[in-house]
Amino acid sequence: MNDFSYYNPTRIEFGRDKENTIGELLAHDGIKRVLLVYGTGSIKKNGLYQRVIASLKKAGIEYVEFGGIVSNPLLSAVYDAITLTKSNSIDAVLGVGGGSVIDSCKAIAAGAVVETDVWDFFINKAVVEKALPVYTIVTLAAAASEMNGNSVITNEVTQQKYSIGSVLLNPKISIVNPELMMSVTKDYLAYSAVDIIAHSIEVYFTATDHPHFQSRLVESIIKSVIETTEILMKDPTNYDARAEFAWVSSQALNGLTSSGTGGGNFPNHMIEHALSALFNIAHGAGLAIVIPAWMKWYKDKNLLQFERFAKEVFGKETADEGITALQQWFDSIGAPVSLIKGNIPREAIPDIAQNANTLGKLWGMENVYTVKSIEDILKNA
Amino acid sequence: MNDFSYYNPTRIEFGRDKENTIGELLAHDGIKRVLLVYGTGSIKKNGLYQRVIASLKKAGIEYVEFGGIVSNPLLSAVYDAITLTKSNSIDAVLGVGGGSVIDSCKAIAAGAVVETDVWDFFINKAVVEKALPVYTIVTLAAAASEMNGNSVITNEVTQQKYSIGSVLLNPKISIVNPELMMSVTKDYLAYSAVDIIAHSIEVYFTATDHPHFQSRLVESIIKSVIETTEILMKDPTNYDARAEFAWVSSQALNGLTSSGTGGGNFPNHMIEHALSALFNIAHGAGLAIVIPAWMKWYKDKNLLQFERFAKEVFGKETADEGITALQQWFDSIGAPVSLIKGNIPREAIPDIAQNANTLGKLWGMENVYTVKSIEDILKNA
Repeated sequence: MNDFSYYNPTRIEFGRDKENTIGELLAHDGIKRVLLVYGTGSIKKNGLYQRVIASLKKAGIEYVEFGGIVSNPLLSAVYDAITLTKSNSIDAVLGVGGGSVIDSCKAIAAGAVVETDVWDFFINKAVVEKALPVYTIVTLAAAASEMNGNSVITNEVTQQKYSIGSVLLNPKISIVNPELMMSVTKDYLAYSAVDIIAHSIEVYFTATDHPHFQSRLVESIIKSVIETTEILMKDPTNYDARAEFAWVSSQALNGLTSSGTGGGNFPNHMIEHALSALFNIAHGAGLAIVIPAWMKWYKDKNLLQFERFAKEVFGKETADEGITALQQWFDSIGAPVSLIKGNIPREAIPDIAQNANTLGKLWGMENVYTVKSIEDILKNA
Repeated sequence: MNDFSYYNPTRIEFGRDKENTIGELLAHDGIKRVLLVYGTGSIKKNGLYQRVIASLKKAGIEYVEFGGIVSNPLLSAVYDAITLTKSNSIDAVLGVGGGSVIDSCKAIAAGAVVETDVWDFFINKAVVEKALPVYTIVTLAAAASEMNGNSVITNEVTQQKYSIGSVLLNPKISIVNPELMMSVTKDYLAYSAVDIIAHSIEVYFTATDHPHFQSRLVESIIKSVIETTEILMKDPTNYDARAEFAWVSSQALNGLTSSGTGGGNFPNHMIEHALSALFNIAHGAGLAIVIPAWMKWYKDKNLLQFERFAKEVFGKETADEGITALQQWFDSIGAPVSLIKGNIPREAIPDIAQNANTLGKLWGMENVYTVKSIEDILKNA
């Protein structure tokens, strides 16, 4: 077992109607004025926005609104929000939405307390040393952003989708009400399932060590994702399935599964970020394309763990059977499992590989993931 | 899935030599003078004490010593330590030891900042609202005290072994170096294994809901405990087995396994605390006596979960076979599985039942666990 630090100070408030407590929770923490960040308006249609505002008003919390965050969230919006935050004596950032909203909140929280360009954190030119506290109300379970300190932002000028991570950006409190997720479309349920599985398997397959408990934890997450996704495809308002899906999505990327493993790396995310920076495809859809292709390319580097995966998750014997079973399962829930199915032209492979390699250099992965090897992986897709 | 709050702000620093960083970590948190709490002196023999002192001195941290904490730690020692703390401008409590030392540190941390009797927290006459920060260096993996806010203390005057729990008592940082645990005797390894399994199964069997992920998590912990214990019985210095054993022991009682389950209750701990308050038996040994007896008595109240346990943990079909397999496993590692094997006279059953029922009232369990039903359970032992 490798040495590690585990520290996750995010408090999760989980259950029905918990969003109505947000004002009270903020007031208890001494917060006076928040930047209220949200997406493209669905929270106004379903009444969540109104309930949040009512809770803030009741607790005497002032708010400044910043809506319009899109999926694959943009640096330009983060810049605008930072300007707004700095000019309004904001003392916390409250995100109401999915991973894109919460990731934006973290970038805003880091950028609002410094004079440097927030993008410097993403290109390793600066390190996050302080931030405004972030609070979240989660409406989509996938990114685990509600329980980690990671943020992924797309710089639309340079076409780079880059990330930062700091425990200072862990949300102070995240509210997870599974009922808020019942209106998620089947497409996005599928993409979310793929995303959670992606978070689980990156380290599971690439780590330098595999303590059995850590492997069991990942297999438990994946089995619960598969079970609950299948229930939700037929019965979208099944509360218990929504709840378990949401809870395991947080567990998949909150630091727990990777503890003691040496950390591994994130090749599927590297390639997918490059892909969706060029083609505006949903993150989970991009991952469904990349993962089986990567698994076929990588399996011989860690055959025992691929055989373990096949056996424990799908009851199969060989690594190849496990990969096929996962690919077929992605397909069965409607996630694209090839470039063609994702409407990505094969001619784009060199550009995607080039873009991924640039990111790989930043993540210290350029030795294994050369432009050539990334092209080989994408040709499997 | 039941509503829940999950909040565990303890930072774990895990790995070889990490104890040498304690001074630096305390200094980083602005701590100037600690109460250094430890047990009956083994840390002086094996050099750990000397390394801790060297680290404190190097970082300019002053310390006042309080040694002599015994297993089933005593309220009288906590009182003495509180007096010492109050008169020495102590701003943190540092425990170096196992669960007894860490539990004592928490009681000291809570009692040192108030004028009321610290025992009032244990008998529900007062609530912990503040505490000194607690830091720990763990030498025995079992109690999970390094990663929760619980403390169990024995009042030797009233013969009550009672507990408190507050997130304010969660250690701020706990250092877990598996190498420090390599000298644990086989007896105590066995008792620790039983204790971790006890922490895992209390809620697993008694909860009002059983989300599959939560059940899988518990089964993963138990399987890892069994595997690593068997390795360590033959090869006590196996680092990876020590490490996994230590890590799962923290996971078994840090709030994670019970999330969403409704919380369940702790009948085996209730009975064991009553037992070891009367007979000074190791906590894990007491649990090995109580658990199989309780399982036989309780199984029909939650038969499906007992059948699941039998299948997932031991590959057995029936609840009874699962119970027998666990009892045989306890026996195989040298834990006492009956009152006779634990040198507890059967004539003591009424007194133990009476004492357990008193504690059960405090824990709100007196409806199910009457004196009569506790006697019935103990007769199975």
